[in-house]
Amino acid sequence: MNPRYAPSDASQAPRYTGIRTFARCPHVAGALDGVDAAVLGVPFDTGTSMRPGARFGPAGIRDASLLLRPWHPAHQVDVFAELSIVDAGDLTITPGNAERSAAQIAEQLEPVVRAGAMPLVLGGDHSIVLGELRAHAAVHGPLAVVLLDAHADTWDSYYGERYFHGTPFRRALEEGLIEPHRSLLAGMRGSLYGAADLDEPRGWGFEIVDCDELRGWSPARYSERVRERIGDGPAFLSFDVDVLDPAFAPATGTPEVCGLLPHEAIGFLRALRGMRFSGCDIVEFSPPYDDAGQTTALLAANVAYELLALAALAQRSR
Amino acid sequence: MNPRYAPSDASQAPRYTGIRTFARCPHVAGALDGVDAAVLGVPFDTGTSMRPGARFGPAGIRDASLLLRPWHPAHQVDVFAELSIVDAGDLTITPGNAERSAAQIAEQLEPVVRAGAMPLVLGGDHSIVLGELRAHAAVHGPLAVVLLDAHADTWDSYYGERYFHGTPFRRALEEGLIEPHRSLLAGMRGSLYGAADLDEPRGWGFEIVDCDELRGWSPARYSERVRERIGDGPAFLSFDVDVLDPAFAPATGTPEVCGLLPHEAIGFLRALRGMRFSGCDIVEFSPPYDDAGQTTALLAANVAYELLALAALAQRSR
Amino acid sequence: MNPRYAPSDASQAPRYTGIRTFARCPHVAGALDGVDAAVLGVPFDTGTSMRPGARFGPAGIRDASLLLRPWHPAHQVDVFAELSIVDAGDLTITPGNAERSAAQIAEQLEPVVRAGAMPLVLGGDHSIVLGELRAHAAVHGPLAVVLLDAHADTWDSYYGERYFHGTPFRRALEEGLIEPHRSLLAGMRGSLYGAADLDEPRGWGFEIVDCDELRGWSPARYSERVRERIGDGPAFLSFDVDVLDPAFAPATGTPEVCGLLPHEAIGFLRALRGMRFSGCDIVEFSPPYDDAGQTTALLAANVAYELLALAALAQRSR
Amino acid sequence: MNPRYAPSDASQAPRYTGIRTFARCPHVAGALDGVDAAVLGVPFDTGTSMRPGARFGPAGIRDASLLLRPWHPAHQVDVFAELSIVDAGDLTITPGNAERSAAQIAEQLEPVVRAGAMPLVLGGDHSIVLGELRAHAAVHGPLAVVLLDAHADTWDSYYGERYFHGTPFRRALEEGLIEPHRSLLAGMRGSLYGAADLDEPRGWGFEIVDCDELRGWSPARYSERVRERIGDGPAFLSFDVDVLDPAFAPATGTPEVCGLLPHEAIGFLRALRGMRFSGCDIVEFSPPYDDAGQTTALLAANVAYELLALAALAQRSR
Amino acid sequence: MNPRYAPSDASQAPRYTGIRTFARCPHVAGALDGVDAAVLGVPFDTGTSMRPGARFGPAGIRDASLLLRPWHPAHQVDVFAELSIVDAGDLTITPGNAERSAAQIAEQLEPVVRAGAMPLVLGGDHSIVLGELRAHAAVHGPLAVVLLDAHADTWDSYYGERYFHGTPFRRALEEGLIEPHRSLLAGMRGSLYGAADLDEPRGWGFEIVDCDELRGWSPARYSERVRERIGDGPAFLSFDVDVLDPAFAPATGTPEVCGLLPHEAIGFLRALRGMRFSGCDIVEFSPPYDDAGQTTALLAANVAYELLALAALAQRSR
Amino acid sequence: MNPRYAPSDASQAPRYTGIRTFARCPHVAGALDGVDAAVLGVPFDTGTSMRPGARFGPAGIRDASLLLRPWHPAHQVDVFAELSIVDAGDLTITPGNAERSAAQIAEQLEPVVRAGAMPLVLGGDHSIVLGELRAHAAVHGPLAVVLLDAHADTWDSYYGERYFHGTPFRRALEEGLIEPHRSLLAGMRGSLYGAADLDEPRGWGFEIVDCDELRGWSPARYSERVRERIGDGPAFLSFDVDVLDPAFAPATGTPEVCGLLPHEAIGFLRALRGMRFSGCDIVEFSPPYDDAGQTTALLAANVAYELLALAALAQRSR
Repeated sequence: MNPRYAPSDASQAPRYTGIRTFARCPHVAGALDGVDAAVLGVPFDTGTSMRPGARFGPAGIRDASLLLRPWHPAHQVDVFAELSIVDAGDLTITPGNAERSAAQIAEQLEPVVRAGAMPLVLGGDHSIVLGELRAHAAVHGPLAVVLLDAHADTWDSYYGERYFHGTPFRRALEEGLIEPHRSLLAGMRGSLYGAADLDEPRGWGFEIVDCDELRGWSPARYSERVRERIGDGPAFLSFDVDVLDPAFAPATGTPEVCGLLPHEAIGFLRALRGMRFSGCDIVEFSPPYDDAGQTTALLAANVAYELLALAALAQRSR
Repeated sequence: MNPRYAPSDASQAPRYTGIRTFARCPHVAGALDGVDAAVLGVPFDTGTSMRPGARFGPAGIRDASLLLRPWHPAHQVDVFAELSIVDAGDLTITPGNAERSAAQIAEQLEPVVRAGAMPLVLGGDHSIVLGELRAHAAVHGPLAVVLLDAHADTWDSYYGERYFHGTPFRRALEEGLIEPHRSLLAGMRGSLYGAADLDEPRGWGFEIVDCDELRGWSPARYSERVRERIGDGPAFLSFDVDVLDPAFAPATGTPEVCGLLPHEAIGFLRALRGMRFSGCDIVEFSPPYDDAGQTTALLAANVAYELLALAALAQRSR
Repeated sequence: MNPRYAPSDASQAPRYTGIRTFARCPHVAGALDGVDAAVLGVPFDTGTSMRPGARFGPAGIRDASLLLRPWHPAHQVDVFAELSIVDAGDLTITPGNAERSAAQIAEQLEPVVRAGAMPLVLGGDHSIVLGELRAHAAVHGPLAVVLLDAHADTWDSYYGERYFHGTPFRRALEEGLIEPHRSLLAGMRGSLYGAADLDEPRGWGFEIVDCDELRGWSPARYSERVRERIGDGPAFLSFDVDVLDPAFAPATGTPEVCGLLPHEAIGFLRALRGMRFSGCDIVEFSPPYDDAGQTTALLAANVAYELLALAALAQRSR
Repeated sequence: MNPRYAPSDASQAPRYTGIRTFARCPHVAGALDGVDAAVLGVPFDTGTSMRPGARFGPAGIRDASLLLRPWHPAHQVDVFAELSIVDAGDLTITPGNAERSAAQIAEQLEPVVRAGAMPLVLGGDHSIVLGELRAHAAVHGPLAVVLLDAHADTWDSYYGERYFHGTPFRRALEEGLIEPHRSLLAGMRGSLYGAADLDEPRGWGFEIVDCDELRGWSPARYSERVRERIGDGPAFLSFDVDVLDPAFAPATGTPEVCGLLPHEAIGFLRALRGMRFSGCDIVEFSPPYDDAGQTTALLAANVAYELLALAALAQRSR
Repeated sequence: MNPRYAPSDASQAPRYTGIRTFARCPHVAGALDGVDAAVLGVPFDTGTSMRPGARFGPAGIRDASLLLRPWHPAHQVDVFAELSIVDAGDLTITPGNAERSAAQIAEQLEPVVRAGAMPLVLGGDHSIVLGELRAHAAVHGPLAVVLLDAHADTWDSYYGERYFHGTPFRRALEEGLIEPHRSLLAGMRGSLYGAADLDEPRGWGFEIVDCDELRGWSPARYSERVRERIGDGPAFLSFDVDVLDPAFAPATGTPEVCGLLPHEAIGFLRALRGMRFSGCDIVEFSPPYDDAGQTTALLAANVAYELLALAALAQRSR
Repeated sequence: MNPRYAPSDASQAPRYTGIRTFARCPHVAGALDGVDAAVLGVPFDTGTSMRPGARFGPAGIRDASLLLRPWHPAHQVDVFAELSIVDAGDLTITPGNAERSAAQIAEQLEPVVRAGAMPLVLGGDHSIVLGELRAHAAVHGPLAVVLLDAHADTWDSYYGERYFHGTPFRRALEEGLIEPHRSLLAGMRGSLYGAADLDEPRGWGFEIVDCDELRGWSPARYSERVRERIGDGPAFLSFDVDVLDPAFAPATGTPEVCGLLPHEAIGFLRALRGMRFSGCDIVEFSPPYDDAGQTTALLAANVAYELLALAALAQRSR
């Protein structure tokens, strides 16, 4: 309960004071000794098909994360006392080149995974998950994917480009990084190009729960279904902010109406209590489209906090 | 399944590419051969009692409609394959003169109705519905009105002005264009000038369902009640974006708190599956009040899409 | 039913016309004869720990209050006919000095309370409630507190400062102004500094209902619980806009995700029908963070209207 | 130097405190005894050809006017000590009916002019100046017009509507209210429908100075030219905020690029020192298009202050 | 004076009416008979190093171009009567792939150039100019470049990527498309990576005039210097909105403080009267960063209009 | 030319990558060995009389400073090679208590001054300069003040509060920290409470140059006058962003129209080439009031860069 790294003390100076790291955690780049979880930004948005700006997502989440306090009352856990958490800064990527960036992400992330620190990645558009999955699969083998998202992101290509934010899970499947039969994709909604958009990935083994159905599920049911799907193997959790309704998360690249309410989405996450993920991310937050009250940023920061709380609970139950 | 008019192909160029028509449908003005549905803008807001700006509504909806894809997964229909849809541009109106504009709208719209194309009108403030109803009634006789709106819009006049966005249904009734006993007005809420504001139209035969009650209805119940009311005669569906809660539709002229959530409103629309409307509109979207994420625009475009999907289903079931 | 003071007539000129007072009520400062309820602004935000700007709250609520009409359809009451309501302007405060401002508020408010007019205070940050409670307790003795808020505001100090927006109820308790055993604090949520943040005030006798639990309550249950708690003694109702979800109330100082929906919060208020409060306030609205559609302002104005409607009902039932 | 009416004392409470009147002057409607200048709002924008919203102009200027202090250092005059100034509230107008509103404005304004108080009108779109000119001409006979504006506003009609914000000076000429040979219109720029747009009014006798030429003038030259033109007869000064460059006044209905810089425009106004105007206005400020810093509002409020300072100087020199 | 293509008539319906093409010109794609100038959008921003969003530039300029009227009073020319102008829509590009997009631009633009229509390209980030220059050089041979820009855009690569918005003129030089000794780059300012950033391109023969010097030039001097440089050969004019001060053009990718004022920049353009350019563009307008008054959009549309006016004057003088 | 501390290399990753420090300089708190200049934030705004929000100023300037490159072309100096510069984070202050915060600032800043590092302070409202001056005077004795500001900030108190953003230079004078006869305050403008507002400080020996006069000065004249005034003693330079016109710096607490243009203000700063200041600051930037393009932030970051460039030149000339 005395973690090596902990946020600066908010009782000494207002939380808006100081260099902005995630939740005021120490900025530690490189060394991973004594790190349980590493928050990493991936400021990349070349893979965006509609509204760009997710390159500013990591900075935006860091700004809003100042409002996070350590004690999680629903889980009754002090997240930053249970885990030693650092802000490891941003990964190097190459704007304008999604394929090369995926390789760079994988290369930089693999040592983190190998060191046993759980990476929480702040996107960036969803194309970055390919690099993440490569890093995790290199260490743990193929992963189950637990996805909350308005889109399944299993399209094949856009105008001939194969590395795009609508294609990462198809690429990951082709590369053998993920196991569709152990995966659960939920929250899908909005108009499509054709019925095949969802029928195809279902054909490969993915379970896809559309948003209208998901809205009717209790957190317990969601949790049960996730656990049934992923079984004992390694798993990765990806949270695309567009799973939320645009009123709560306007600042995203391809918004779809009729999304989840925040307490619904966060209820689903909290129900995963006790599960351990090899890694996780929160993607597609594009700050230029946020409102003056920074509603999306605040929500993204809280989702990140929920993901860390899950890790803290998993740590405690070891 | 090979409609004469169809949107430009989104697999060839990003959807944000090109001259902006509704859902990238061809801009066809004048000729109505082979047109099943015509999207028409009515950029008029002289009838607004509080916040103006609805004159920019059609352009705002067109912008956001780029995000619409052809396949409607809930209805399992390819909207733009089932129907031949054009964007017929904007009707000519006279800013500063609501009475003359109503006449202009009726005159321009009647040939569309007579040609058998379903007009989907993008407002504009709600005063424009008077012109629409004249056009439809001229062809089909008096119509049932299915209204989703925070206000009944049956006031008599404002400061002596009789053609205003709070009065169109009273004017339509006086002109014999609509049948209150076949109509259902739902979603009303917010403070009033007096009890008579709703008691009067109820006295004329309108059924008025306030928003708190409506929120408790299932889509099935709403649909059943609509079908009971309108019976076999012609019907018109009008969707005022202020039926939605202001967090989801901030960009409107006279917002009222505690409105419907988007999935509630769209659930009601989808439940009307199988019904055929002579025409429909979506009104009162005022872009200058939208947020950076264009939440209202996105929702208005999707409501328009739902209305077209209903028409596509009706077409298929013929 | 012929109140001494009433809003200017909206049938003569558009509601956006004229000098902006609350709901277009007459501006009457000083004399309190024939006044049933006095709306007072307290434009103070020195006590804010994160986002400032609540000093502009009273003006922002006045602006949005123009949209309020007199008839409350849910309660079937003409609020401004039942009660004689004035806008008494703003209290004098001292920016930069929360302790002195609390004293100034108490001094100016006590004569209003003593004259039998119900003060409805438009904040300002929550630190101002200390001055309010002093005024009410000076006349009526210790009060029950009915609080809707994301935070319990019972912290001890911030960086050594004891008069802050997170501390007023602890100060009030120390000064003997409130009775925790008769109080109900509801809506609390968000991360905390530690478990003690809520355990301590519970230890002093406060009932604290967290937001997730509250969301599951019916309005009737909430109302019943409030009545059980406060019993027959004097009571004060404080509404912090941050009890609402940030999508509906982005413009606030310390937003917390997963708040109440507007119809839930207003449903709770309406269920208090028949109760009489010595006074009430609505606090923490910070206009610089509102969106273009002024969603928060509109909601704050409507909450103020609901509080006046409760007073009107209480008046009628006398 | 002890005016009957004076602003509330800013040393007692912050300037953002209190009910918002122009420059915190007393709100006095009706009685005009002891009033030297009356600030009046005309919240009307039906005459707008592009962006509406000027109906909120008076309220927006009042908000920003809180920043005005009494001492004008360039003129070395205490504006509010020299003159007894009231905020007379807003005139009644009829939204949706520009012709009727012009008549209402004239009717309400004439008694003010007749009482010898100088009206400073806060618009509203420019169509309102017709009503103003009628009131002044009824008392003083035909007036010289001193106009700073991007447009000459001498078009004939728009889509058949003759009462519009681009036509008031032609209507005024037709009604014999103004004298073109004594008038100076300056600041015109931007693309036109044809050469006749300016040639016609020049033909009637107006002097029109385009903005590029005006920019090269010194304040002294402008002042000299104005004095030469208007001679000894009565004169009216109209300031359209679109004479300023859009970066300084983005919130206007029909912006034109390459406008005046604020210190240029205000320099011209200051150079009119010693002149007496029967009345003046500032028009076309549309708050929904302002930026977060309220740049246009601030500038509009300062222009209003400059106009009052001119009146104060004229008063002193009597 | 009776051009084949002309804007729709603004005297029939308000300018905000109708499908949005540049200045309400007809949308004609493909056929180029009788076209003097073709406005083409290139909605591409993968080459952006800081703020993305220029993909929405063409649509943003079209929106603001509605305010353009045909008569240019400074040049005394009716732009749309002198020239037959069409809006040819947007070129197809591949988001995420700047190299391929450059090739696509060149391929689609070359037939336009070859047909003798002057293309006015609406960007898009500055990387698109490479494709433009290829098209022009293929027809006319190497071109002189007349550039108004805060940056010389002659860097070599970014993180290994050679096709970026800071590198197009180096690529063009390498490809033999432009002649530095005939070119004039003006407006450069802001911090640099090193002295070589400007020394290198000067070494290749470019004349580079920094913004502080340029500000001191009269339009006549600028014009004279441009004419001296480019001589008799073909020339291309590129206008990057960041040459303007950020207060006037906030919506751009890499803003630099202390830019030109609009009347200075437009003064320089007008001074080029009589010159003929093979083509021109206006680039780097990124709508998500514009203010509510759309200051940048308005200015960009006017710059486009000035470029067409130059073409109209050149046409007339033939 | 090999400074101990230098910004991270922008050729390796985009400038928007990484934890945000000023100009991507290393964050070094505490140790001052080998530091030539230390950038320090003072996130304090309790002293604000109108618009708050300057507490977010340091973070806002850091965000915008990412756009700064090392080479200053006007001065021909590599700022970050000449000087070893660190971002020392934010000073601890006490929100709600300006007097205590002044003491805290002085206490934390004095060791920096004593160590010989030049502090560049990012405010914060102007009240913070009192603490700064105490630190500098403790080491160097009384200082000359070179102030660019719309206000002289020499008022006595506000509503009884003596530590406010309008009073710091009077407090500093009372405490013997500054020498008015060696000081130059320039840029003053806007309405005042009375003639004494400027006459009094002039009476104490300050030279006050109002903005209209200053605008007419050349940079050389300004520089000459500054050098004459301050002579050989220690000097402090304070830059209040409100010296700039609100179109360029909308995001400030008490904006005044008709300010300097950016190139004028920066021209004055550059003319101080060769002078050495004990310290400097840039204050009153309030991010909530900035526009989407972050115009004020960008300008504030560039002013900070100019101040460092002056220090670099002074260093080189040693």
